[in-house]
Amino acid sequence: MTDDERFMALAIEQAQLGWDEGGVPIGAVLVHDGQVLAVGRNRRVQWGSAIRHGETDCLENAGRQPARVYRTSVLYTTLSPCWMCAGTALLYDIPRIVIGENRTYSVSEDLLRSRGVELTVLDDPTCLGLMDKTLSERPEIWAEDIGEEV
Amino acid sequence: MTDDERFMALAIEQAQLGWDEGGVPIGAVLVHDGQVLAVGRNRRVQWGSAIRHGETDCLENAGRQPARVYRTSVLYTTLSPCWMCAGTALLYDIPRIVIGENRTYSVSEDLLRSRGVELTVLDDPTCLGLMDKTLSERPEIWAEDIGEEV
Repeated sequence: MTDDERFMALAIEQAQLGWDEGGVPIGAVLVHDGQVLAVGRNRRVQWGSAIRHGETDCLENAGRQPARVYRTSVLYTTLSPCWMCAGTALLYDIPRIVIGENRTYSVSEDLLRSRGVELTVLDDPTCLGLMDKTLSERPEIWAEDIGEEV
Repeated sequence: MTDDERFMALAIEQAQLGWDEGGVPIGAVLVHDGQVLAVGRNRRVQWGSAIRHGETDCLENAGRQPARVYRTSVLYTTLSPCWMCAGTALLYDIPRIVIGENRTYSVSEDLLRSRGVELTVLDDPTCLGLMDKTLSERPEIWAEDIGEEV
């Protein structure tokens, strides 16, 4: 198992927890120097949150970090980042994002690449499977999560 | 006093509260059909938050809203949005942002305009004054707030 696969497995664990809680199954992990700084998951349903996506929840859980930490970290996320989460990565100059899958949703990858962020897409079947279930079983909360209505 | 000035005054009130709490003085207001849905302010210092900027705090305080509400709302913010807050506005398709000032900081306006968001910049002296004080008296937390170090 590569490091990317190992950290993605933690993000998937978060996504699965979110699914089990009745939420949107997207998870994230922030890794610095090979160490996990924080994990996070989408909390829309669980906490009634409009801004706690997997990535932003993870960054919030990491607490206040010096700029140099973000700039040498890797963000793992089970799904390609929405505009908010992409913007958060750009705010903190996170240089690399590892994405579980981008078939279900992909809006910000061109912007991220244009600003020098390195993206690695794993096309992971477990990540895809979680989003497939979401689209078929929880279409309303998925739509809400990306600013749409079914 | 125009509507824009009136709602910006509420955002400034939030920013001033944030300053008085020892934080970064940036405030925001979300307005739908002429009614205030929520106010918010930067909570970096107060709550140890990495993601509660004025705009994101305001959106979080507004709770889960249907997409049609965001798409017909106006976001007021005392300072030009960072990447994260611009991304949040794009996620929810907020069509108009009224900005107190953009002399201290401006990174996302081209992106927002390119995606059809209408921006109105008030160039408000009170907003400018609050950020002038921040740059001179709290440069470390301001730098941290935008992913930099002094």
